[in-house]
Amino acid sequence: MAKIKKINHVAIVVKDIDEALKFWRDQLGLELDHVEDVPSQASKVAFLPVGEGEVELVQPTAADAGIAKYLETRGEGMHHLCIEVDDIAEHLIFLKEKQVRLINEEPLVLPGRKMAFIHPKATNGVLIELYEITDEPES
Amino acid sequence: MAKIKKINHVAIVVKDIDEALKFWRDQLGLELDHVEDVPSQASKVAFLPVGEGEVELVQPTAADAGIAKYLETRGEGMHHLCIEVDDIAEHLIFLKEKQVRLINEEPLVLPGRKMAFIHPKATNGVLIELYEITDEPES
Repeated sequence: MAKIKKINHVAIVVKDIDEALKFWRDQLGLELDHVEDVPSQASKVAFLPVGEGEVELVQPTAADAGIAKYLETRGEGMHHLCIEVDDIAEHLIFLKEKQVRLINEEPLVLPGRKMAFIHPKATNGVLIELYEITDEPES
Repeated sequence: MAKIKKINHVAIVVKDIDEALKFWRDQLGLELDHVEDVPSQASKVAFLPVGEGEVELVQPTAADAGIAKYLETRGEGMHHLCIEVDDIAEHLIFLKEKQVRLINEEPLVLPGRKMAFIHPKATNGVLIELYEITDEPES
């Protein structure tokens, strides 16, 4: 089985990143690494490193996307838990063998990373993102 | 200001730890360190290390406690995010100066650790536990 490496991030859905940074950066004291648009997730994301992981503040950018509907229904709060593994394809095979309900049967391949979500029905209500860093040093 | 060290744990409220371990240990593949009763939190907790942090599965043990009411109202899922700092007293002073709404104005002192919760009204809906490890090496 693939090796589980760490909690890569905890994602928090917020209405407005600038407003949210007033707490997470200015009051709690986390450092803001950067904010970026993530069109594949229909959102804008603020990355705040904490130890070996991150807190990510996620603001939906498209009203019809899943994350926007989540915000509308459940309000602001923790949205998903991202666990980094060394081999996501192998881990998905392992989960499928155990008949775990997945949102993505195959990894989504993006520059520098692969990702897949496990269905919260299988995980005591926690949306889990599996994540593999695929950045290779430049040759 | 106190230094923020890491994500100490993500706590997940579950109805039944033994049932939940069928996913988190047997299917996802986390290691179970141990399960212990935590009377101060009216719960039983399973500790599953992930990198430098942990996933904690929390099963309420008293029907009238806050965590049991949370489970009844919201169902299973992520309950709180614990961030470890090097000096919780100093961090609480800093938060109070910034008029952040706290659940605990002073740290709760337990063997080996101090802890305090920030109110989710101040944090985009995330119950944050601040945590300081106070274990000293035996002399």
